[in-house]
Amino acid sequence: MSEVIASYQIYGKTGSFEKKAEGIALGLTVGSWTDLPLLEQNQLAKHKGQVISIQEFPADVHPDKKDEIKAEVKISYPSLNFSSDFPAILTTVFGKLSLDGEIKLQDLIFAPKLLQSFPGPQFGIEGIRSILNIQDRPLVMSIFKGVIGRDLDYLTSQLREQALGGVDLVKDDEILFENPLTPFEKRILASKKVLQEVFEETGHRTLYAVNLTGRTSELRDKARKAKELGADALLFNVHSYGLDVLQELAEDEEIRLPLMAHPAFSGAFTSSPFYGVSGSLVLGKLVRYAGADFSLFPSPYGSVALEKSIALAIGEKLTEETSLKQAFPVPSAGIHPGLVPLLIKDFGKDCIINAGGGVHGHPHGAAGGGKAFRQAVAAALAGVSLSDAAIEQIELREALELWGGA
Amino acid sequence: MSEVIASYQIYGKTGSFEKKAEGIALGLTVGSWTDLPLLEQNQLAKHKGQVISIQEFPADVHPDKKDEIKAEVKISYPSLNFSSDFPAILTTVFGKLSLDGEIKLQDLIFAPKLLQSFPGPQFGIEGIRSILNIQDRPLVMSIFKGVIGRDLDYLTSQLREQALGGVDLVKDDEILFENPLTPFEKRILASKKVLQEVFEETGHRTLYAVNLTGRTSELRDKARKAKELGADALLFNVHSYGLDVLQELAEDEEIRLPLMAHPAFSGAFTSSPFYGVSGSLVLGKLVRYAGADFSLFPSPYGSVALEKSIALAIGEKLTEETSLKQAFPVPSAGIHPGLVPLLIKDFGKDCIINAGGGVHGHPHGAAGGGKAFRQAVAAALAGVSLSDAAIEQIELREALELWGGA
Repeated sequence: MSEVIASYQIYGKTGSFEKKAEGIALGLTVGSWTDLPLLEQNQLAKHKGQVISIQEFPADVHPDKKDEIKAEVKISYPSLNFSSDFPAILTTVFGKLSLDGEIKLQDLIFAPKLLQSFPGPQFGIEGIRSILNIQDRPLVMSIFKGVIGRDLDYLTSQLREQALGGVDLVKDDEILFENPLTPFEKRILASKKVLQEVFEETGHRTLYAVNLTGRTSELRDKARKAKELGADALLFNVHSYGLDVLQELAEDEEIRLPLMAHPAFSGAFTSSPFYGVSGSLVLGKLVRYAGADFSLFPSPYGSVALEKSIALAIGEKLTEETSLKQAFPVPSAGIHPGLVPLLIKDFGKDCIINAGGGVHGHPHGAAGGGKAFRQAVAAALAGVSLSDAAIEQIELREALELWGGA
Repeated sequence: MSEVIASYQIYGKTGSFEKKAEGIALGLTVGSWTDLPLLEQNQLAKHKGQVISIQEFPADVHPDKKDEIKAEVKISYPSLNFSSDFPAILTTVFGKLSLDGEIKLQDLIFAPKLLQSFPGPQFGIEGIRSILNIQDRPLVMSIFKGVIGRDLDYLTSQLREQALGGVDLVKDDEILFENPLTPFEKRILASKKVLQEVFEETGHRTLYAVNLTGRTSELRDKARKAKELGADALLFNVHSYGLDVLQELAEDEEIRLPLMAHPAFSGAFTSSPFYGVSGSLVLGKLVRYAGADFSLFPSPYGSVALEKSIALAIGEKLTEETSLKQAFPVPSAGIHPGLVPLLIKDFGKDCIINAGGGVHGHPHGAAGGGKAFRQAVAAALAGVSLSDAAIEQIELREALELWGGA
């Protein structure tokens, strides 16, 4: 029997969890049980939610309610009860339950048969590496900065600078929407031209992820048009649309572009320790299942930071062994070249080193910033300390002087 | 100039809020300001976010950080910066900001010109009243219970019982998805037949809200088909899809069915006092702007309860004066006939009294439950106490004996 197993964090008094868990398992499936005639029980057995396990953590006392401890409760929901789509699954496992006091959805485990309904990344880490022909190092990405109200010349010269530094990917600012100065299609065409020029000058290929925005029903046609115009990849604010919308983009054979999931708005339901959904589930597992090739999330190093254990768990969910392709972890914010060895230690070679200020704020501009990152990556992979590498490499030296790290 | 003004709740040290607010206003619009040349400042002025107000609440000390107090910060974002759709607006005002520590989005104020881009309810309170031809009392609604794994006969006999009690609306269980026993189209046709029979027997018309589910891109066709088959209304789990998906349903002229927004999953981003989005914004203002004719939310009376001030604020946002039609507040959970006078006192006549257990659990079944609610409504509006009314009315008397209240 196929099913999804949901893991919840709840607080309560020792010994109170069984009744609570049984109430959830019934309330979100067949409604009631013990008062049903045996015949109906037999009929409904295959639809009934099952409490799989209850684990109490007596040492984890609630910070505000001293008589309550933490528990992890796992409940299995038969996939017979829902259609195989995210809205149905989320409504089943965390629909009205999300409104029922302090409860956080920590994980969902999809049975293999259920997982087959989800596309996963269409390119994945391997596919992206093969487009770029870079097999053996983390990729380096940078971000447009301050592009609202700017024209296409401003955008393309910023793009050119970034590409000249040797970054592998440049992403749009996620708050850049359809606008008369830098409309979507013109951004694709202009960026293509600039990046081709840089490729001819330097031999290095940089991909540009354009921000796919607008009304939900128009996204597919817009994405197909992007593909037609030769776009490299799409950035997508999935959490202000819905996971199913991302999935439909991934499934569309006429689109087939790498999809970069931005975490905008996700903090609204992942940040609380007591409510909502865990970051590793939303920004790791679910965006991967839905078809993201890249998932951005706050790094554990900057000022807008995630707890390290959460950031690592997101990376883990994006890359762990499943029947679906792996997605690239993109820990973001607060990244400068001095952090590269730590990033590789924490997230492995299969991650993307993504910087905004750490590229643009370099004394030699974005081109210098990109070079410094590439130098740091090369040193880290060669087992050379950054300070040793910086002796010969001026951009890296300047970056270390400015931001520290070695 | 058109804009959206966002109101945030943040915590911090006294006097620290100006810098923080300015950082948000710039970071989510033009990026930087004081270091820009005057020419560029002039160019970008119309795109720059503006701090409108900062109000500190010295008495509201953070429960865990005794040196931090609460503040309300209002920031205005020019509508030039975003397209007039929910994903763009939410990404602008609470995209990466949602990930930036303890911050809660409390309200959004749309300039009148921006508000014109949103459809609002297509029927609204007035339209629903005119369909039902009930002008002067709260409507009474009941909910299917325990319908997973059940067949069409079970469903229709449950529907018949509910309708016989004189409820005005019956909604599907929100966890009932496409399934072989009670598929969408068959539910519509079978319910229509039963409700017509009850109408012929009793003269009372009950509407049935069928749960619109499935993949995002299929919803419109499914909704149009529902319309074609004569469906009365659609129930929709908007928060596991996205507000824009609801809006597109509301805007589709070939659908034109009353839309009932269910709060499933919304607790994930409304429940925390410190993170996410306020209930009044999401379940009140935004679902109304997107086009919901009804918004369900936890009542302040039951076990799955909202704080009373939040529930009242949701009701307020659904009905306050704007250029858009009003939507029906549907405070739900924990409702029994004894609460009717309080419900009317709290939410006014323009609300929907919605019950599950309070209808089905009546000693005379769902038909008895519906009657008890209707008797309670009539008494409350006539200024008769429930206990007086219960002398003559047996269903109400039984309800009061079982659940209390008078």
